[in-house]
Amino acid sequence: MSFVTGNKIRISLFGQSHSEAMGTVIDGLPSGFKIDEEKLAAFMARRAPGNDEFSTTRKEGDKVRFVSGITNGVTNGAPLCGIIENTNTRSKDYENLKDVPRPGHADFAAWSKFGDNRDVSGGGQFSGRLTATMCIAGGICKQLLEEKGIHIGAHIASIGTKKDDLFDAVNVNKEDFVGEKSFPVINDEKGEAMKEEIRKAKSEADSIGGTIECAIVGVPAGIGDTLFGGWESKISSAIFAIPAVKGIEFGRGFEASTLRGSENNDAFRMKDGEVVTSTNNHGGILGGISSGMPIIFRAAFKPTPSIGKEQESVSLSRKENTTLIINGRHDPCIVKRAVVCVEAAAAIVAANMIL
Amino acid sequence: MSFVTGNKIRISLFGQSHSEAMGTVIDGLPSGFKIDEEKLAAFMARRAPGNDEFSTTRKEGDKVRFVSGITNGVTNGAPLCGIIENTNTRSKDYENLKDVPRPGHADFAAWSKFGDNRDVSGGGQFSGRLTATMCIAGGICKQLLEEKGIHIGAHIASIGTKKDDLFDAVNVNKEDFVGEKSFPVINDEKGEAMKEEIRKAKSEADSIGGTIECAIVGVPAGIGDTLFGGWESKISSAIFAIPAVKGIEFGRGFEASTLRGSENNDAFRMKDGEVVTSTNNHGGILGGISSGMPIIFRAAFKPTPSIGKEQESVSLSRKENTTLIINGRHDPCIVKRAVVCVEAAAAIVAANMIL
Amino acid sequence: MSFVTGNKIRISLFGQSHSEAMGTVIDGLPSGFKIDEEKLAAFMARRAPGNDEFSTTRKEGDKVRFVSGITNGVTNGAPLCGIIENTNTRSKDYENLKDVPRPGHADFAAWSKFGDNRDVSGGGQFSGRLTATMCIAGGICKQLLEEKGIHIGAHIASIGTKKDDLFDAVNVNKEDFVGEKSFPVINDEKGEAMKEEIRKAKSEADSIGGTIECAIVGVPAGIGDTLFGGWESKISSAIFAIPAVKGIEFGRGFEASTLRGSENNDAFRMKDGEVVTSTNNHGGILGGISSGMPIIFRAAFKPTPSIGKEQESVSLSRKENTTLIINGRHDPCIVKRAVVCVEAAAAIVAANMIL
Amino acid sequence: MSFVTGNKIRISLFGQSHSEAMGTVIDGLPSGFKIDEEKLAAFMARRAPGNDEFSTTRKEGDKVRFVSGITNGVTNGAPLCGIIENTNTRSKDYENLKDVPRPGHADFAAWSKFGDNRDVSGGGQFSGRLTATMCIAGGICKQLLEEKGIHIGAHIASIGTKKDDLFDAVNVNKEDFVGEKSFPVINDEKGEAMKEEIRKAKSEADSIGGTIECAIVGVPAGIGDTLFGGWESKISSAIFAIPAVKGIEFGRGFEASTLRGSENNDAFRMKDGEVVTSTNNHGGILGGISSGMPIIFRAAFKPTPSIGKEQESVSLSRKENTTLIINGRHDPCIVKRAVVCVEAAAAIVAANMIL
Repeated sequence: MSFVTGNKIRISLFGQSHSEAMGTVIDGLPSGFKIDEEKLAAFMARRAPGNDEFSTTRKEGDKVRFVSGITNGVTNGAPLCGIIENTNTRSKDYENLKDVPRPGHADFAAWSKFGDNRDVSGGGQFSGRLTATMCIAGGICKQLLEEKGIHIGAHIASIGTKKDDLFDAVNVNKEDFVGEKSFPVINDEKGEAMKEEIRKAKSEADSIGGTIECAIVGVPAGIGDTLFGGWESKISSAIFAIPAVKGIEFGRGFEASTLRGSENNDAFRMKDGEVVTSTNNHGGILGGISSGMPIIFRAAFKPTPSIGKEQESVSLSRKENTTLIINGRHDPCIVKRAVVCVEAAAAIVAANMIL
Repeated sequence: MSFVTGNKIRISLFGQSHSEAMGTVIDGLPSGFKIDEEKLAAFMARRAPGNDEFSTTRKEGDKVRFVSGITNGVTNGAPLCGIIENTNTRSKDYENLKDVPRPGHADFAAWSKFGDNRDVSGGGQFSGRLTATMCIAGGICKQLLEEKGIHIGAHIASIGTKKDDLFDAVNVNKEDFVGEKSFPVINDEKGEAMKEEIRKAKSEADSIGGTIECAIVGVPAGIGDTLFGGWESKISSAIFAIPAVKGIEFGRGFEASTLRGSENNDAFRMKDGEVVTSTNNHGGILGGISSGMPIIFRAAFKPTPSIGKEQESVSLSRKENTTLIINGRHDPCIVKRAVVCVEAAAAIVAANMIL
Repeated sequence: MSFVTGNKIRISLFGQSHSEAMGTVIDGLPSGFKIDEEKLAAFMARRAPGNDEFSTTRKEGDKVRFVSGITNGVTNGAPLCGIIENTNTRSKDYENLKDVPRPGHADFAAWSKFGDNRDVSGGGQFSGRLTATMCIAGGICKQLLEEKGIHIGAHIASIGTKKDDLFDAVNVNKEDFVGEKSFPVINDEKGEAMKEEIRKAKSEADSIGGTIECAIVGVPAGIGDTLFGGWESKISSAIFAIPAVKGIEFGRGFEASTLRGSENNDAFRMKDGEVVTSTNNHGGILGGISSGMPIIFRAAFKPTPSIGKEQESVSLSRKENTTLIINGRHDPCIVKRAVVCVEAAAAIVAANMIL
Repeated sequence: MSFVTGNKIRISLFGQSHSEAMGTVIDGLPSGFKIDEEKLAAFMARRAPGNDEFSTTRKEGDKVRFVSGITNGVTNGAPLCGIIENTNTRSKDYENLKDVPRPGHADFAAWSKFGDNRDVSGGGQFSGRLTATMCIAGGICKQLLEEKGIHIGAHIASIGTKKDDLFDAVNVNKEDFVGEKSFPVINDEKGEAMKEEIRKAKSEADSIGGTIECAIVGVPAGIGDTLFGGWESKISSAIFAIPAVKGIEFGRGFEASTLRGSENNDAFRMKDGEVVTSTNNHGGILGGISSGMPIIFRAAFKPTPSIGKEQESVSLSRKENTTLIINGRHDPCIVKRAVVCVEAAAAIVAANMIL
């Protein structure tokens, strides 16, 4: 299901890792909005690989061409379609994966659902590359939200067992965002330890997981809905659309399950005539609805399944056990590149909640 | 948003804690299905309070009256509506909460969104009591799934810092389910330590959180969809509709973020002519699609916000700080009663994915 | 599909003709809206049978009981559920219809889809009686719209070949509405000829069809959407949910297909600083979007299929031709009672477009 | 709203008349389906202008380039995106329309909704040209349906007051379809009179409307849903997405409103062991559900608003009356080219109902 439909904005994503092109259609944008294409390109570039030691040496030219929805650089009210032409694909790297699914990857599930007609090249529609289409939509939503004083920022919260500092859940604001850093962490010293984790994994032809923390600031109290329409339902639904995410928690999250109510409840206080909470264990969401405090969540990313080590798998055609060596170029850790995807998914949800 | 709409089944929930009635409408059920009403009543009873030392002494008669959709005990293809009449409500317990929101509760967010016209009694539409309507729908979906060999079971995985055993993620099957136990844990001895945590919290007029683990077994490989239509997106969206949930993780979840790919990848192996995985860190879901292994997830519940201790809050009318003592009858821990709600939410999603 | 989901308001209908109860759930209503229950009862009464010579002598007590969503007579933001308990049902009238489907009725299609478990009594979920649930939702939406200066009125435009006057498409306003009349036509003299048509059909144990014209006035220009989201798409989709509707046309409608562009195009003119059209062949909708002129449409109703005359049908069990005499009480013409249903369907759509 | 979302297939359309490209995304197609691209091109060509005396001399190269969703000519399960690059656009023809809206056209409504940022060129997103994107989706759905024995055919039923024969509503089958004819009518002699109508309108710098009849054959009984999910609701919703449609009727349609029940009811009869009706006034749909008889409907198209004659309009900037002469190339009658669009819209709906 490549469609996400909300009250305001409807988005459809298309493409496979090595299809001719991939892209996104966004319906429901207000007319008269000037998309800052340079800013969008910078946003997209945060996801693109090949710009440092930690990512695959593939070159991905994530240049967005808007083929509809824009007149003279400004949205015209028609559905906007942004396309990225695919180039520099090395499909033959994937030939042996057609019969032998990669452990931990979507290969086997894809074969179960779509059979032999699935696109195997580069992971087909299951490729992390497709998050580029989500970033087109998310990058535009982010710009729309910024006009309304709502800002979204994420950072790497951990790589393996090495942790960054967390946002100050009560006071975080856009000045605290570090997304533009080449290694987006709050505490650069801790970032060095995290980089070292990645280097170690890479040197052993292995990969490593991590977590990302995201904050949405500037959302007024009273936005959202109950039950299936709450912020947690909507955000989690979008975040799990990013490949490799296996967990999400809001505010104090799993740790809250170990606490007493007297510890976890956030006291209400008056501040400058507004109701605030003195702590933010609730992560800015109460009963599915925004409380006016920063919305905070963390997502867990499993380690990239594509590793260089020999692994045990099966031959789908011969129905027998075999081993697999994966060739091709792969990231030892996709967490760094996923930071911008988390922001994009959050922006899509927030735009639908707020616009 | 009390509506959840899927490809097959559309569900709408209604009611407030103290409204005349609450209920659920289910559209899209196949005709000719015999609902086992006794089994449904037993399912509903697992959620109902008042049957042990750990829950409020309120009596909730969660008797479902089907007013449409059934002829001679069998579904007739028309939308099914099941209603629970509300009785034994003590609305005056909630009078002082109209002006002073409970820390950690939806009160303040509800006021921000709905203003003075919101229903305050018993938490209104934000009450955990509304999960009864979700259990009607989920209980019926569960019966439908069982006809197809798909079974869903959950247990308390932890209370505070005290933990139960976890399911054997590879081999769990319906015989391992413990939902019918009065304190649904796998390891009763560990259960005693968990009960002790609740007793302690209760004795201190406090509350305590916990986690619930759920398994969906019997789902064949190849069910589900990519991106926003994946199992994780759909399940998380439904689980966060249960009040007090602040986190969810699938398979190895957050722990996977600390692992190497070589540790986390689940090797594929042939077994009795079928492709299986020798471990199940992926929790039965790859690329949003079922792998044929048990689907496993855990949800984190914060401690009940309603506690007896004095807390800091504000007067919404006077815009000033104040303190709050909550009267009324409240659970020191809702985790035990939420086990069945987790099964219900999972069943609603699974029915929409599979039917 | 008993669910209609829009950007703002989501509605779910339930019930069969003779089920214990039927009703409607409305999610997304603003809080703080005072529903005028007397006005709603008067609206519902326009649909109810038994109040004159032209309708069945069945008594239908369409008394709505609101079981949720309202506190102290005012919407509280929670999903509103209104229920009508069914009484005075004579199910045995329908026994012979279980095997022999009524020509022109949904009986055969229902059997094809739902098999022997369908509810046959009173037409089950296919009964025109279910439009009462649509009227609950529509009646409330109508009140909401009136607060915003938008008014909806319909009248019988024809019975058989006898026609009423049509609305003045350019100038129609709420003062022209005749819905409260016991026989809602613009021209009472022409109404007498229409009544005579019904009497004739009734005296011959037959039924007769007709058309209904509806106007939505006060909609500002620029509301609506292109393609599948246009007013015509949305209104037609809702109007065809009313049983017996077989056609719909907007503005000049089918007649426009016989005209030249120079005849059909509505000239734009300035009037009191506003852009208006000097004629309204476009029925207030251009490109799916409101033009600011009255929105006008007409719906065609086939004659009631349940007639007293002997008809040819088949035995579903014996797979052979047979004849059918329908017992029970039936309307010779449902057009009069359907006027309010057309208003209700239009109001549901308009509320979703405008709120 | 350029999105149509069904149970099975979700479609998103994008583009403006003169945007860089336009296209369609289709999600939910089964994998392994071989799209006959030559057949699709022939289908698209039926809509394209420039191939006879009756249509604009613009050249529209509606060549579809599939950029995703297909591997080796076969669907791979990923969302399919088909793109048409726009060429040969003469935007300056539309400069004077920016301030002076064309009577009968969407110009004024577009300005009301989207303001000065709307795309004026060629009618922007409101252009009939966008139906090409609907034809991509519809053409593919049609091929899918044909594999299941379901065929869709439409013809010009009238131009102005000149009428073609109608389908034999009981016996029509795919052999009766005339869509491939250069002037798709059943009775070529009557077709000559219809052509003459168009020539006359053209010679007077005017345009003329018409109607199109469509049949869907091969749909088994029991498909569809009640209320808002019925065939009439779904088909009408899609057909009104085609610009210029102002009316739709099913089976006997508006004429049924003039009939007695004894005339309009279709007798059920056994034929070769199957239940059929001896007439088909119901148009193959009873209670929203298919009866197994051909599904028949007719749509009314208003005359093209763009005519050469001088017309009265207003200056939006100066807020005063003015006159308008429309330059550019325009069809005197779009009915002929719309025949394939009607088939496309019907195919999209039928695919969602049936697959």
